[in-house]
Amino acid sequence: MVTVAVDAGGADLGPAEVAAGAARAADRGTRVLLFGPAQEIGRVHDGVEVIDAPVSIAKQADPAYAVRTTPEASIVQATRAVAEGRAQAFVSGGSTGSALAAALFNLRRDRGVYRPALALPLPNPSGPPILLLDVGANATCRPEHLVQFAHMGSAFSQAVLGIAAPRVALLSIGEEPEKGTPDLVGVHEQLAGSRGAGLNFVGNIEGTQVVEGVADVVVMDGFTGNITLKLIEGVSGRALRLVGEMARSTPRGRLGNRLIAPTMRRLRETIDPEGPGGAYMLGLRQLGVVAHGRFSARGFAQAIDVAARGVQHDVIGRTRAALLEAGALRPPRLGSASGDDPDAASAPAATVSTS
Amino acid sequence: MVTVAVDAGGADLGPAEVAAGAARAADRGTRVLLFGPAQEIGRVHDGVEVIDAPVSIAKQADPAYAVRTTPEASIVQATRAVAEGRAQAFVSGGSTGSALAAALFNLRRDRGVYRPALALPLPNPSGPPILLLDVGANATCRPEHLVQFAHMGSAFSQAVLGIAAPRVALLSIGEEPEKGTPDLVGVHEQLAGSRGAGLNFVGNIEGTQVVEGVADVVVMDGFTGNITLKLIEGVSGRALRLVGEMARSTPRGRLGNRLIAPTMRRLRETIDPEGPGGAYMLGLRQLGVVAHGRFSARGFAQAIDVAARGVQHDVIGRTRAALLEAGALRPPRLGSASGDDPDAASAPAATVSTS
Repeated sequence: MVTVAVDAGGADLGPAEVAAGAARAADRGTRVLLFGPAQEIGRVHDGVEVIDAPVSIAKQADPAYAVRTTPEASIVQATRAVAEGRAQAFVSGGSTGSALAAALFNLRRDRGVYRPALALPLPNPSGPPILLLDVGANATCRPEHLVQFAHMGSAFSQAVLGIAAPRVALLSIGEEPEKGTPDLVGVHEQLAGSRGAGLNFVGNIEGTQVVEGVADVVVMDGFTGNITLKLIEGVSGRALRLVGEMARSTPRGRLGNRLIAPTMRRLRETIDPEGPGGAYMLGLRQLGVVAHGRFSARGFAQAIDVAARGVQHDVIGRTRAALLEAGALRPPRLGSASGDDPDAASAPAATVSTS
Repeated sequence: MVTVAVDAGGADLGPAEVAAGAARAADRGTRVLLFGPAQEIGRVHDGVEVIDAPVSIAKQADPAYAVRTTPEASIVQATRAVAEGRAQAFVSGGSTGSALAAALFNLRRDRGVYRPALALPLPNPSGPPILLLDVGANATCRPEHLVQFAHMGSAFSQAVLGIAAPRVALLSIGEEPEKGTPDLVGVHEQLAGSRGAGLNFVGNIEGTQVVEGVADVVVMDGFTGNITLKLIEGVSGRALRLVGEMARSTPRGRLGNRLIAPTMRRLRETIDPEGPGGAYMLGLRQLGVVAHGRFSARGFAQAIDVAARGVQHDVIGRTRAALLEAGALRPPRLGSASGDDPDAASAPAATVSTS
């Protein structure tokens, strides 16, 4: 049985909502260690162990500093539980920034990985989810980071989403290899060459194509990824709202609107951000899932489920194997015993779930 | 009467389609000089003068080189007509890259402007259009470029869209001033300080907020802008398609779908990319409008109309005045008599209308 350490601090609807999600996940067979204010959480469910951790650093401006100076914080305790083997993965309901900082501090990056990335399986009504990464762990990226993200995403897509040869694309401003920023042109060249070994690299795609299902994995830096994810959320929501608003202006439209209400509900559920359960934090020595701060119990249950599934499918081990096979691991540096790149631990972008 | 020079080369539907659009614009009171293959264009309409220019460089990989070596190309002739005073603005139906290169070559940047930007008024069903810039002229930008874009967009929004004190926002990955790339954090600081003089700067907005109408002008680099624009197009289109597809799976839904068909048509027209007529090229000594290569006659007529309206409202003069007032002009360099920045003329991003 998989044990998932869950941070109940920082969720918009409060720790009790996270606990309700944990209870649902426990019913479905995952053991949960729940770190949060025991008093607010109250009575607990079988399969959910509450560890009193009333301090949350989800709203701190400098997450890296907060993590180092607040060992009792719920997210710090949750990631430590994973580092110490009491759990196999963690789920954060607070801010991306503090989750990333705590994970880097307690779990550290996997050997040869430059930067962790947040990978989000975007619900796709006409096929398997489309994996977007990075959706917000790194506001700026170097070309070698994006090359690794391509492999991390492909390995994840195979292991967890069950896609045999995921089509990996680079998000750019034109399909031609020479389109985009100079950095992206370089990434394209590497992925089309030997650094793309083992990948089914399909080249650049444009913004219009992201939701069209022409690629299974779409690679981008965390700034572009965060904006992409939030535009998809905002624009889909607005389009569906406008259908209703404009229909209601005529009697015929009002009737039509009532008749398609079940369709609209179904469609909203299909593209609901709670569906995927959050973004997977890839590239660490163990697995983390960052839920959206706005999630209800349903979303948190989903996040815990996907974390458990990630452990069962050995996402971390498979990602490492894919990077190794493609020669996309960072070469060890002289004088750096751990193989870690010190600049990566300092400033996560802190974006996905901070609301 | 305003005269607009139109490049009929490079449009997906062919020069005759552009000519049909020119005829409509001429009917509405704009004189058109149409540069393209006279044979394909055929019979002409009063108010449209065809200048035979059968060579198009819209598909050339290196637009700057193509412009310098192909003086007879339709876009080069069209921009030259503006430079020589035979027309007051130009409309390009080919690629953004060649239009930008030709405009930089023949019209040059306005004094004190670092880089031209493409500004697109995004149709907004619940209010005035939302101006996005840059949507693809510059794949990479320095902070001072974005500061100028804010002023250029604000001046445009006032002059052409009639918004008295446009709310100007910076697209980022969090509302807090310190969120985003280091460059964006610096831009925020400048716009919130003295470099934002005369602006109604409302701070950062996130991807979800772009279409919500919380800002009238949204500033971003051309890479982010191109992806933003294309995501909006792709995601809105998909959402509306899905409503229809999912509704048709039940008898009740099929009936509802028929009843809301007029609503859907109206909504599609409202958000149609042909509506705004293309993107305005700001920051040059004269005005250009880049239509989408995919446009039909309706879109080209619209593009010619907006170019004429831009001339009537003195977009260029007003933008210049706003930059001057805010002290956001580039200081003249020693040894550079023209005030031009040579690095800007070389590599436009070439993205909006290349299909």
